[in-house]
Parts: sequence; C-alpha cells; structure tokens
Amino acid sequence: MFFASDNSGPVHPRVMERVAQANQGFAGAYGADPVMEGVRQQIRDLFEAPDAAVYLVATGTAANSLVLATLGQPWQTIFCSPVAHIHEDECNAPEFFTGGAKLTLVGTGDKITPEALRNSIAAQQARGVHGPQRGPVSLTQVTELGQVYSVAELAALSAVAREFDLPVHMDGARFANALVTLDCTPAEMTWKAGIDAVSFGATKNGCMGVEAVIFFDPAHAWEFELRRKRGAHLFSKYRYLAAQMAGYLEDDLWLNSARAANARAERLADGLRRAGAQFLLDPQANMVFAALPRVTHEKLFAAGAAYHLWGAVLDGEDPQEMLGARFVCDWSITEGEIDRFLDLI
Amino acid sequence: MFFASDNSGPVHPRVMERVAQANQGFAGAYGADPVMEGVRQQIRDLFEAPDAAVYLVATGTAANSLVLATLGQPWQTIFCSPVAHIHEDECNAPEFFTGGAKLTLVGTGDKITPEALRNSIAAQQARGVHGPQRGPVSLTQVTELGQVYSVAELAALSAVAREFDLPVHMDGARFANALVTLDCTPAEMTWKAGIDAVSFGATKNGCMGVEAVIFFDPAHAWEFELRRKRGAHLFSKYRYLAAQMAGYLEDDLWLNSARAANARAERLADGLRRAGAQFLLDPQANMVFAALPRVTHEKLFAAGAAYHLWGAVLDGEDPQEMLGARFVCDWSITEGEIDRFLDLI
Amino acid sequence: MFFASDNSGPVHPRVMERVAQANQGFAGAYGADPVMEGVRQQIRDLFEAPDAAVYLVATGTAANSLVLATLGQPWQTIFCSPVAHIHEDECNAPEFFTGGAKLTLVGTGDKITPEALRNSIAAQQARGVHGPQRGPVSLTQVTELGQVYSVAELAALSAVAREFDLPVHMDGARFANALVTLDCTPAEMTWKAGIDAVSFGATKNGCMGVEAVIFFDPAHAWEFELRRKRGAHLFSKYRYLAAQMAGYLEDDLWLNSARAANARAERLADGLRRAGAQFLLDPQANMVFAALPRVTHEKLFAAGAAYHLWGAVLDGEDPQEMLGARFVCDWSITEGEIDRFLDLI
Amino acid sequence: MFFASDNSGPVHPRVMERVAQANQGFAGAYGADPVMEGVRQQIRDLFEAPDAAVYLVATGTAANSLVLATLGQPWQTIFCSPVAHIHEDECNAPEFFTGGAKLTLVGTGDKITPEALRNSIAAQQARGVHGPQRGPVSLTQVTELGQVYSVAELAALSAVAREFDLPVHMDGARFANALVTLDCTPAEMTWKAGIDAVSFGATKNGCMGVEAVIFFDPAHAWEFELRRKRGAHLFSKYRYLAAQMAGYLEDDLWLNSARAANARAERLADGLRRAGAQFLLDPQANMVFAALPRVTHEKLFAAGAAYHLWGAVLDGEDPQEMLGARFVCDWSITEGEIDRFLDLI
Repeated sequence: MFFASDNSGPVHPRVMERVAQANQGFAGAYGADPVMEGVRQQIRDLFEAPDAAVYLVATGTAANSLVLATLGQPWQTIFCSPVAHIHEDECNAPEFFTGGAKLTLVGTGDKITPEALRNSIAAQQARGVHGPQRGPVSLTQVTELGQVYSVAELAALSAVAREFDLPVHMDGARFANALVTLDCTPAEMTWKAGIDAVSFGATKNGCMGVEAVIFFDPAHAWEFELRRKRGAHLFSKYRYLAAQMAGYLEDDLWLNSARAANARAERLADGLRRAGAQFLLDPQANMVFAALPRVTHEKLFAAGAAYHLWGAVLDGEDPQEMLGARFVCDWSITEGEIDRFLDLI
Repeated sequence: MFFASDNSGPVHPRVMERVAQANQGFAGAYGADPVMEGVRQQIRDLFEAPDAAVYLVATGTAANSLVLATLGQPWQTIFCSPVAHIHEDECNAPEFFTGGAKLTLVGTGDKITPEALRNSIAAQQARGVHGPQRGPVSLTQVTELGQVYSVAELAALSAVAREFDLPVHMDGARFANALVTLDCTPAEMTWKAGIDAVSFGATKNGCMGVEAVIFFDPAHAWEFELRRKRGAHLFSKYRYLAAQMAGYLEDDLWLNSARAANARAERLADGLRRAGAQFLLDPQANMVFAALPRVTHEKLFAAGAAYHLWGAVLDGEDPQEMLGARFVCDWSITEGEIDRFLDLI
Repeated sequence: MFFASDNSGPVHPRVMERVAQANQGFAGAYGADPVMEGVRQQIRDLFEAPDAAVYLVATGTAANSLVLATLGQPWQTIFCSPVAHIHEDECNAPEFFTGGAKLTLVGTGDKITPEALRNSIAAQQARGVHGPQRGPVSLTQVTELGQVYSVAELAALSAVAREFDLPVHMDGARFANALVTLDCTPAEMTWKAGIDAVSFGATKNGCMGVEAVIFFDPAHAWEFELRRKRGAHLFSKYRYLAAQMAGYLEDDLWLNSARAANARAERLADGLRRAGAQFLLDPQANMVFAALPRVTHEKLFAAGAAYHLWGAVLDGEDPQEMLGARFVCDWSITEGEIDRFLDLI
Repeated sequence: MFFASDNSGPVHPRVMERVAQANQGFAGAYGADPVMEGVRQQIRDLFEAPDAAVYLVATGTAANSLVLATLGQPWQTIFCSPVAHIHEDECNAPEFFTGGAKLTLVGTGDKITPEALRNSIAAQQARGVHGPQRGPVSLTQVTELGQVYSVAELAALSAVAREFDLPVHMDGARFANALVTLDCTPAEMTWKAGIDAVSFGATKNGCMGVEAVIFFDPAHAWEFELRRKRGAHLFSKYRYLAAQMAGYLEDDLWLNSARAANARAERLADGLRRAGAQFLLDPQANMVFAALPRVTHEKLFAAGAAYHLWGAVLDGEDPQEMLGARFVCDWSITEGEIDRFLDLI
C-alpha cells in the first residue's frame, strides 16, 4: 500500500537484466559505448527526430536544470507553473545551473493556459535593460497535480512562446504516463506541438536513475555537453545509464509500465469514488488527489498505508473533516494491494 | 589489453548482486532506505569516525566539487597540484560549484611538498581584500601520476594547512589503491593525518557509479545536503547507490579489488622493465607511466591494445624514439591479458 | 516639469562643493581616507549604532544585492513585495550576487503585511532539502508605490521574521523621504524596529551616485568587504564617494532635501486633487500615483512634461478615459515648475 | 612624495569642471543624456571605429570582468599573465562575473610572448569535454610591471589568439600612458593590432572613477548592457560618469596627463639611476621598479615618502641590502616633489 511516490518503487526486472547484460568487459567511457549508440538511435527513431541531440543524466533535476541553462540566459526569467517541480522541489537548482535566472510563476494552478502565459510574458516587457528578460517556457507533462496537457493545449502554449520567440521545455518526469493517456506519438506530444527540448523521465517508471535529455535542434549539443560535464553529471561508466534506458525502451516496456501505473490509479480512483472520496482534480494519469475523512486517514496510516496528505495536517479535532491527499501509483503496485487498501476504507 | 582507464571496466559481480538484492518492493527515497542506513554506519566504523557525515553521489567530480564548495568560499583560492583532476579534468566544475573560487597550482608535479604548499599559501597574503583569499587544500591520493602520499607526507601537508587554518580535502578517486599500498587504516590515511573531508571513490574500483563523501566534522552536513540537492546530485532511488557501496565494502571486496589492480600494475611494470621500457615515475598503485619505442606502440595499437600516450604523439619519424604512455590496470584485468600484452612487446 | 524620476535630477550644490573640497592632493585609496573616516563615524552617530559596519557603494542595486548576498545563502528564498525594486528593476542582480537565490513574492501590493509575510514564510517549510530554504526579508522604505511603513509596521514585520530566525533588510533608496514623513530617528526606523541591514540611499536625494550600506551587526563586515571587491564595487578613489556622503549628511542637508521633495509632491497632489485627478494611492512621500484623462496627458506631454504612465498606454480612443501615471518629485524641482504644470491641467 | 599608486591622486581640475558643468537641471538617466551622447561619438572618432559599442563603468575591475564575461563562457579558461590585475588583484571578480571561468597563467613574467601564449593555448586541447575550453586572451597595457607592449608585439599575440579563434581583451587601466610611450594612435594600439575589446582606463590618469568599455564588434552590445545592469554597474545619474570622460578627452587632456606622468617617472628613474639604484625592469611608462639599500628606504619612509616595497620587507639586518620597490607617478606629482625625494637619497 505504497502510494507516497513513484520514485520509491523497484526497478523493472527487464531493466535490471539489461544492466546485468551490459556488465561485460571493458567499454568506452562517457557515452562512447555500443549500448548508448543504440539508445541514441532508438530515441531518435521513437521521436521521429533523426537529428536530435540525445543525452542521459541520472536525475530529473539535472535534466531540467541543464536544459533550462542551455536554452536560457542568466538575466532571463523562466515561465512556469507555481507548482512546477523546478520551482518548488529542486532547491534552486535551475537558478544555480542558469547562473541566476528568475522563475516567473504563471497563473495559479498546475496547468498553464495560453492566456495566462501571454499575460505573463507580455508583462515582462516594459523595463528594457532593468527588468529580467523573457526566457524559456517550461511545461510539466504530467503536471505535478496529475493533469495531462492535450496535444492541442501544448501546441497553443508553444504558439504563445513562439510569438515572443521563446523556447519551450517539457519536464517529462512522467512523460510515458502522459503519452499513454493521450494515446499519441512522442513526436506529436513534443516537437510537432512546438516543444524544443524534453526531459524524458524514466526513473519514476521503472528505472534506477536515468533521464534522457532531447534537443530537437542539435545546435544546442556542444553547449549542453559542456554544461553537463561542468555540472558533474557526465558518468564515466555511462553504459549503465544506457543499459537502463535500453531496457526501458525495449518491447514497449516504458509504455506498458505507464499503462499499468495509470490503470492502477484509475482502479484506485474508482474505489475511492465509491467510498465517497472528494476529488480535488480529475485523475488523468498515475496520480490521484482526493479527500477522505480524517478518521479514515488515521485508519489507513495505522494499517501501514504510505501516502502524503496534501495541504492538510492529520492532527485536528473533527474526525469527519475531509483532508486532501496525494496517491501515486507506480508500475509495480498490484491490483491486490489497491484492493486491500480500498477494503480498509 | 585494456589499459586506457579504470573508469571503463566492468562492475564487480558482487556489487551487481547487491544491487539486484536491493530491488525489492518500495523503499524510502533520497537516502532514507535501510541499505543506506547500513552503509552509513559501515563507513563510520571503517573510518573510526562515529560522528562523520556520510553521503553518496554518483560521480567523482560531484564529490570533489560539492566538498570543496562546502569547505570554501567563492572568494578563496583552492590549493592543488597542477595536474589535479579538479584542475584539468572537470571542465571548471569546482569553479562552478564554489561560485567562482580560484585554483592555485602548487609546485610543478603531481605530489605537493610541504615547502611548496607553504610557499603558495604564504604568497597569497599581501593583498588584503584585493587578492583571492586562502581556501581549502586538495590532495589527490593516488595522484594523477600514480604516486601515493605516505601517511607522514599527508600529515606534513595537513600541518601546513593548519598553520593557516585551512581545511584539507582528499580526492580519493583511487582511495583503495592507495590504502593497500600504504597498508594502513582508513583513519590513519585521513583524519588522523589531518584530512577534513574525503571523496571516497568506488566507481573506478568495481562499482557502476558511486562515491562516498565523508566529512569528519558533521557541522558541514546540512550545507552539504543543500548543495547536493541544488546541484541535482540527490538521487531519489538512492538505494541503488547504497547497494553498490554495500557490496563494495562487504568482505573487503574494495581492498581485494584494489590489491588485484595494484598487483596487475606491478606485473605489467615488471614486464615492461624487462622489455627495456623507461619509467617516467615509479609505479606505486595501479597506474604505470612508461616509455616505449614508437614502433612498439604501433605494434601494440595494431594488436588492439588500448591505452593513452602521455605527452607524446604517435606520428613521428624515428621508430626508435621513446614515447611515454599511461597504463591503468583495473581490478578486472587478468594476468593472462597482461602477459599477452607483454608478449607483444 | 520633470517628474519622471528622482534619479535624473541634479546634484545638490553643497554635495558638489564637498566633492571639490576633497580634491586636494593624494589620499588613501579604497576607503582609507580621512573623509570616509568622518563619514563612517557620522553614520554610526546618526543611527546610534557605535559598532555598525558602514560602507559606501555607488548604486542602489549594488547596495541591495551585496547586502542580500551577505545575509542569505544561494539555496534560500528572499521574501519581498511583488513590486520590489530587487525583483522588478535589477535584471536579476540579487540572483546573481547571491549565487542563485530565489525571490518569493509576498502578497499582491507594495506594502507587505505581517500576515502575508507569515503565510509566505510558513508555506516554505514542508519540503526539507528539496524546497528553497527560508532566507532574508527585504522591505522597501519608501515603497515603490510611494507608501511609507510606520515604525510599528516595520516592527511587526521584523517580529515575524524573528519568529523564523530570518534577517531583515531595508531597501532605503528613499530612506530620507520616509524618515521625514515618519518624523522619527534613523535608529527608530531601523535597528530599533528590528532591521538588520540598510541600503541607505543618497543618489535619488541629491548625490551623484552613492549609497551607504549599514550592518548593525559588524560580524558581517569582512564578508561584505570581500563580496564588494569581488563584485567590482570597491572604488579606488573612494574619497569622492565619501565626500558626497559627507556633504549629504552635513547640516541636515539630507533631511531638508527630503522635506523639500515631499512638500513638492504634496503641492502637486493638492493641485491634482483640485483638478479632479483620481488617486491610485495616498501619496506619503515624494511620489504621486494619480489618473488623469487621456486628453490631459496628451496636453501635458505636448507641453514638455516628463513622467511615466502607470499600467496604461497613451494611444487609445476615449479622450476622457482616466489613465494612471507616476509623478516623482526630487529635491530640486521648484514650486514654480509645479504650478506651471498644474496650470496646464 | 606620494608614489604608492596612481589610484590615489587628485582629479584633474578640468575634469572636475566638466562634472560641475553637467550639474544643470534634469537629464536622462542610464546613459540617455547629451554628455554621454557626445562622449560615445568622441570615443568612436578617437578609435576610428564608427560602429564600436561604448560604455562607461566606474571601476577597472568592473570593466575587465564584464568584458571577459561577455567575450567568454563559464567553461572556458582565460589566458593572462601570472601578474595580471585580473588574476592577482580583483578578488576573483572575473571568476564571479564569468560564472566560474578559469584563468590560465601564461609564462612567468608580466609580458606574454607569442610562443608562451601558443604553448599555453595548445596545451589546453587534449581533453575534449573534460578540460576547460579555450577562452579569451587578456593583455595588460601598460603591464603591472610598467612595461609596454609594442604594436608589433600586440599584433603577434593577437595573431596567435586568432589561430585558435579566440578573442583578445586589453586591460588598459593605463592605456594613455602606453599610448604616449608608443606614440601611435588608439586604433593602432587596439583593433588594428587585433584587439577585440578594451578597458579604457581614466581613473588612474586624472578622473574620479570612470572607465570606458569599447567593443569594436557591436554584436556584443546588448549582452554587455544586460551584464552591466545585472552586475549593478549601470549608473542612474550616468551624466557624471560621462562628464568625467568628456573632460578627460577634451583638448588632449588624457594624453597630456599621461605624458606628464611618464615624464615624471623618467625624471625619477634618472635620479634613481644617478643615485645608484638597481633597476628591476626598464621603466617604460609611469612606473619605476628599482632597488635601493634598506637604509635608504628607511630614511625615505621616515621623511614621509609613500611607496610600496616589491617582493621585499623592510625589517632585516643588513642596512646595505638592496630592496626592490615600486614607484608610481601620477599626472599630478610635481617635478619639485620628485627632486625633493631624490635629494633625500
């Protein structure tokens, strides 16, 4: 009954297998190994982007920060949601890697609207050299609140960015979960919708610690490589990153794992709905935000369930007060676990 | 016949095993898992340092840069050898993580002497607020040229740093190789010799990508944790770092692997000596710097041997000209491989 | 009829005189001149702070950024108003000097309330190492919208910061204008109200380019000096900064100039009120925010008046539409000029 | 008898006059004033560079650091002399403004030779993404030891930089002193000799605090303006910087002042020579490096002379030991002062 985060689940056995297979003799360091050669090509094929620059790093924060530093400048401001991971959960890593860029929070929710984006960008104009300059737009897909931008929404946001000649980054820590929800191709969800660079997450969906960075314009390649090395994110034994990614992409493992995670979240949501939970947001991928009575939370925690309250605290008076919570399903959680959890409610 | 670097060898099967064992169900993220709990204690025990702050990161550059940033200030200068990895091979990562500290190159060789260190530190004094301020001393053990500081040498260097109230960092990318050469305890080679913080390398000696950072004074702990997160070096699925380190430390695997690597280098050196090679330096750990005739290098490369020339280029006229080269032995190279290599000469 | 900004007015003749007087022969560089010695003491006396560390820099942005960098850490977030100069008008200088700290915007107006501050600080707590850490609070006195915090308000805000053990900075670009409004002592408006460090502006109130930085706790002194030099803000011919400040403080010139500026703004506001202007805010110092019909603005601009529209643009249809504007009075503007301006309306 | 530094002398009365003249009413801020308009054109004319981007800042460290940050990248290394001001006297300001670039020290003296430069640059090549990348070359004219590069030497150094496609910066803190020594045009000493950007010093030669930054390729303009603002080096009351520069350039004041300073240094050198001083270097501009017996130094200091010993300390045994010293003449020192000084010896 572990719903605390998809960053705490196990590695998929087939990913582990590929890592073990890669463990043969010597191999070129720093990405010059045959496994990485294959992965690079595979990602280009998957994204229908034969010229894309493709790199691996080990954390999502590294992927996001290095991409934003490459796309932007220290005197710019990055446009993102107020609940964006890059704003709330990376201890100023984007500020660090960019050399002091600012983050402008667009709107009030997890999903940015084209109107809010245009307003935010337009507002950042009148001060010439005195104000922060306009910089990259960063969109999180799946959002931090479990919502999925449609392809049309992404295209509309990118179009706004294009009006101002700004690049667009996608924080795809849960890229696969979004993709299976939308049932579209990686290209449709990215460059065809105007995205310039992607943090293509794999860690949360069954890997140990690997994220691909994809620039559709390879002009960014060399700068990114220097930034990555300077950021201490270039692995010598790179093949073990590559092998994870190879296993992840093989035979649609990444998509099947995401489908499993999303299906579990749906099963959980259905059960919660039947049990009278109030939904803070409509679950669209592998995260459920729902409120339950305090007394129910107490019972669940007592039984060993793991998840986070959301904007609420447990210790209060009224046992029937509805308290919000976040439930995340990773690929590995079983239907049996979910049913056991629901039975408790 | 792979002598190019110890960063290209395979992972020891027992490390791989521990990683596979760790792959069970959910586990606390970011270091809050039981494997890490054990590793933390094991390292404290090993170093006879019950209060030490112990962390894991995935690259040596991360370990070095984060430690130096924690020990120093942006307006300081770090004292290191002119061939130090932090100076030559990290693409300005120490400058990045420290926020722009300078590196002062001490002496001309790989090993710093107390006199040279004192002179360098003393020279950095007369300018008050105008000049860089004195900062941490960084020593590499094993040095980049395969030399090992004796415990007495380390103590003498630390004593100089202490005269000026400066902290001392050890870049121990090849910590184990040095330790088995000196046949002393980890404590003797570190805090008992005046070292304040260690980058305790494991990647080059049989792991996938893991280095421990050890501060003997835990007052640095919280700042380091913030710097690590901000540097995007905090792993969510931390248990896979911890498991590598657990396997590495178990049953003296780390020491045995280092002994193997050093013994192979000795066997190689013996053979080279018999074959008339000139030694640039006396090999003391797992690296051999020796010169062979151009024609011999050509034959070796043609036969598939992998290693780097050192301050020399292959294309020249005189087939008998002696050209320097670096040969690195990792734990996995076999005596057979070495003998096959020597037979070619 | 120049109301565009108090950064465009002339230098007071008595400041100029002191600069000329300082121009005699050789003098110690970098602050080691007798004029600065006097200024340092004078500011300590003025603020009843015998131990204060006192420095001069040439721009307000330098004062603010260097103070905030000294009081905070790169992984923290600074709490300020959404219209704070440090956020909107310094092209990410605070982010640059702090090494990438974040700015958290408190509330929605120019004046921060204790409640909003407490909420903002409290909200920054739940994420441990993942989120930005709580950093300095920065208050602007006079605010960017011409409002003045009362001493009680300042004390209440500082008390909130103290609850969380956070330091408080005052951006006093218009310190004198606030002080004469409040009719209190410098000590009452600063350290007695819980302020830790002040950017004591003089440029806008009759100097060429000089701002004092005052730390009431001299423990910050050396770090500030290093940051100032590293930021290229340490002047060699420092006496010319010191002489400006000496002239500024002599015979209450600074207070009299601020009184003059505030009185002019009041005269202007009275006139505007009589002319039917709508006030966006109640003017409290030397800035007036008021709306006039489009047609009136057109007439004024045509007659050569200089000021900025505020959140409005001139080209529109309805000649009677009320458009906001900002009018700033510096010490040098004459009653005649103001009356001439009012006559045009 | 003040020979400690040319940063401690008075402002030339005609510069002061121009500052006073500029003090009339309101003027556009941030460089949008008519005085600056004139200065910009005057500098372009002087340098025969009609497209040059011209800016003013108040300190030499700001000029140098901002130029180097604009010409280079954080992952590069800047090539300079080991005694360069940017290395020894700016408290890591270049590292700070570049975001962590490294400085590579070329050769061992104050003057860089083409051979040493080529060797240093060439040495920085073999490590791909791992090593620092090659960055700008910075030359100091007059050098920190009072030497002047000939136009041919500058051209030869620039040619080496061009081989590697690297930009060249001139730290011209004493630009005028070098120019009058060489008796050439500003264009000949800069862009015609391959210099890309100049820190054109005026502070040391009779101004209060103003240095021009000149980029011969205006493509750098906007980035420089953003960096300057972000570095807190954009003055609001810019006219007072502009007025200094206007006075400085008027009627060849800058050249005449430099001629005066150089002539005084020559008179001093002649006198010292006659008195038996040993010269560390042949004086070529306004600085003299010469050794005198300890007892003579003692007498001079006792009589109130101000200058710095150079690589020597006063307290020693042998009264006849020759101790090096640096003597700097600024434009204002009189022949009478020099003779009085010489009479003491």
